Amino acid sequence: MPSHVFQAPTGTRDFYPADCALRRFITESWRAASIRHGFDEVDGPTFEHLDLYTVKSGEGIVSELFSFTRAGGERTYALRPEFTPTLARLYAAKAGSLPRPTKWFCTPTFFRAERPQRGRLREFMQWNVDVLGDPSPQADVEVIATCVSLFRALGFTPADLRVRINHRAALCAWFESRGIALERHEALLSLLDQKSKLPAAEFAARLAAFGFTPEQAEVFVKGLLRTQVSPRSSEVSVLGETLDAASIDPIKRLMSGLEGTSDVLDLTLFSEAVAPLATALAAARILDWVDFDLSIVRGLAYYTGMVFEVHEAGGQERAVAGGGRYDNLVELFGGPPTPAVGMGMGDVVLSLVMKDKGLVPAPANLAEAIGIRPDVFVISNGDPGAEAALMPTVAALRESGLHVRHTYKTTRNVGKLLREASDTFARLAVIIEGADRGVIKDLGTGVQDAAPTPIGLLPAALGDRLRRGGGAGGVEVSVKAPEPG
Amino acid sequence: MPSHVFQAPTGTRDFYPADCALRRFITESWRAASIRHGFDEVDGPTFEHLDLYTVKSGEGIVSELFSFTRAGGERTYALRPEFTPTLARLYAAKAGSLPRPTKWFCTPTFFRAERPQRGRLREFMQWNVDVLGDPSPQADVEVIATCVSLFRALGFTPADLRVRINHRAALCAWFESRGIALERHEALLSLLDQKSKLPAAEFAARLAAFGFTPEQAEVFVKGLLRTQVSPRSSEVSVLGETLDAASIDPIKRLMSGLEGTSDVLDLTLFSEAVAPLATALAAARILDWVDFDLSIVRGLAYYTGMVFEVHEAGGQERAVAGGGRYDNLVELFGGPPTPAVGMGMGDVVLSLVMKDKGLVPAPANLAEAIGIRPDVFVISNGDPGAEAALMPTVAALRESGLHVRHTYKTTRNVGKLLREASDTFARLAVIIEGADRGVIKDLGTGVQDAAPTPIGLLPAALGDRLRRGGGAGGVEVSVKAPEPG
Repeated sequence: MPSHVFQAPTGTRDFYPADCALRRFITESWRAASIRHGFDEVDGPTFEHLDLYTVKSGEGIVSELFSFTRAGGERTYALRPEFTPTLARLYAAKAGSLPRPTKWFCTPTFFRAERPQRGRLREFMQWNVDVLGDPSPQADVEVIATCVSLFRALGFTPADLRVRINHRAALCAWFESRGIALERHEALLSLLDQKSKLPAAEFAARLAAFGFTPEQAEVFVKGLLRTQVSPRSSEVSVLGETLDAASIDPIKRLMSGLEGTSDVLDLTLFSEAVAPLATALAAARILDWVDFDLSIVRGLAYYTGMVFEVHEAGGQERAVAGGGRYDNLVELFGGPPTPAVGMGMGDVVLSLVMKDKGLVPAPANLAEAIGIRPDVFVISNGDPGAEAALMPTVAALRESGLHVRHTYKTTRNVGKLLREASDTFARLAVIIEGADRGVIKDLGTGVQDAAPTPIGLLPAALGDRLRRGGGAGGVEVSVKAPEPG
Repeated sequence: MPSHVFQAPTGTRDFYPADCALRRFITESWRAASIRHGFDEVDGPTFEHLDLYTVKSGEGIVSELFSFTRAGGERTYALRPEFTPTLARLYAAKAGSLPRPTKWFCTPTFFRAERPQRGRLREFMQWNVDVLGDPSPQADVEVIATCVSLFRALGFTPADLRVRINHRAALCAWFESRGIALERHEALLSLLDQKSKLPAAEFAARLAAFGFTPEQAEVFVKGLLRTQVSPRSSEVSVLGETLDAASIDPIKRLMSGLEGTSDVLDLTLFSEAVAPLATALAAARILDWVDFDLSIVRGLAYYTGMVFEVHEAGGQERAVAGGGRYDNLVELFGGPPTPAVGMGMGDVVLSLVMKDKGLVPAPANLAEAIGIRPDVFVISNGDPGAEAALMPTVAALRESGLHVRHTYKTTRNVGKLLREASDTFARLAVIIEGADRGVIKDLGTGVQDAAPTPIGLLPAALGDRLRRGGGAGGVEVSVKAPEPG
């Protein structure tokens, strides 16, 4: 017998019911946003062959993975650190028979063998959304719009979170126009990605080696890390609504943050790449969430076009989400050349930001949002006939599909039991007062009615009452988009 | 670049959208049954410290686990092969502050490093349902009732699946009454558990060593593996409905299969242990699913009371589910003495049995059941005003919470696009015919109406129509219990 109490491994989490409810609220919100935007759910194994990861990221990734073999087995496996290699494998295996575009999402668990720190754990959930087989800026925007749809559903506004986009092709075209040779672009992108980790003087010195002036270095360091929110509107004319001046030229709106930098940057190079994106962002009604931001390059070398990250407007935490276009990756996994764009969002930073902004729903709202509010709490008043009817009534109501609770206490004090019912956030209470009589109480309004006789009619009566919205009171749910279907 | 197409590791699965929909149908059905019966969801890490598993199962378990260390780390971890050790760890850590009883469920993924075969994979989903802190037969029955609730929701009947229960305490009391010493009971239980793997003659010979006659061995081998279904009814009187003769004595009903064996078994020993279970099974209205079956012992040594397995009535596949009472286990993990009862059900055997019985929902029914039927499919007829309105209308409808799809094809042939809409199982289609006019078509009834003007009123109009049940036709869903909440 152990002398200690066992604990979860470092960097992993236990999910007691309240933790599990919040996690489910997040994963269900991810799923709902994906479905609203027409994505289909996929998944793969929790572990893959190790070489699936070294193909994309090189041998250097191995120390960041949990890898293992089976006793007596020959192959080395690794717990998945991300979804993209699995996604590319799945797509490559059936590319010929899949629709164009293929729109996939998933919300599984991933693993990193690194030191845990704020916002980064060894096991975490991550939402992935990808459009495969569509090279258009509309596909780029579809991914961003799905991400914004999640933020809106959770109660965030454009004043809380900013989608900061950039375009690698535009950035590289600009590097080329400055005479920086193609083979140096990756080193320069990698330097830009490190800017927040380097002292300003060192960052400027390294940029100078690429021919940038101190003023240009300044643009990368803070000129574009704008934290104040610009005036916003994404109304467009086609819905017959009043136009907002700022929306007439979406390109101008999107790039407004860059205007003060036109003396150091050739903006025309950017607006060519950005114009189609800006137009699609306006049509998707999300322009007010987006800033064009030269400082976003993303650490991963495989992005080929648009890249984006979502940050708190105040910038306190790590990126909430990130993604971009990766047109060469499916081919790397044995598939046909396939344009692709996608994004990932982890649950750890997202829940920190929800807490920062006061957007974690209160327990009753959470219960409502994830569908765990009891429909009925059944009480016996202690009458012998009521006692005999209690468990069969509970069973009959559950058979009819209702979520039913009852007390496990020995008390038959109806007042105490009604308080227990309210504490579970139940919609209705049924108080059985005899073998064949009882009372239905709406725990939202407090209104009581006689239960139907014989009491065998109760399941139909309660189902009908709940369908008409009975017991809906007492809990205000503003965090979840309506689901009229 | 690899010359081969990568594959999922042996014994693991890829989940393309249709596979993922079925998996979600199963896990959501598990979750719904758990919630109806008042269980709260919990979860733990995907991997635990290896010693969490050796405490309960001994070092012998190690070869059946995927275990690993972190590069540079000291602790050995293992992918979880089951939930019970995690459950016991979670309960032990907070036992003092948890309610009595604590009712927990989970539906995560588990791993076994064994050779894959029909019904057994290296990675699988498993539903766990446990009641902790309640020693009563009602708690045993609550676990079984939740399991039966799932079967009913999936469309199974008592003619398809049988819950076969036994009671270890009763069995051991009977062994004792026959003069078999306590220290030989575990070996005898282990022998009984192996009966289907041993030739009949060898099984009888080994039983003879415990003092059983060949006639008694016969009872264990096939007398109790009854495959025909007995007459059933679980109606009870308290709901004011007609009594069924078979339900008047639930003990008699439950043990009816043993009656022919009274010359070789002392049935009174069993009926004492079984009487409270039978009464609670009748009150829970599930007596018609249950047989008392002496051959069920469960391989795991830690069960202390009631044990059960669910098998196809025909007996073709492995057990669909299994569980029992384990009153000593929480203490083994450092917690206080805690009576407990629970069960597990994997997705692999369950889906085989669903296929055998024709209970896998057709694609449209599956889409309805897991909430992925599109609410609206938006079509432009090619008019320039309609083209400009298309994407903003899609965006506005999604903002209002609707699941909206549109074509990615270039055709504007409305007939073809309506067929595409029907193929997605969409409830409604909107055909935009100009900047500010269009038609709403109910894809269930085929009825068309003019869209409201201005078209900005569309989200409210469609939401209202869907709430009133519009577009519900065309798909018949009989597999899912109603959710009136």
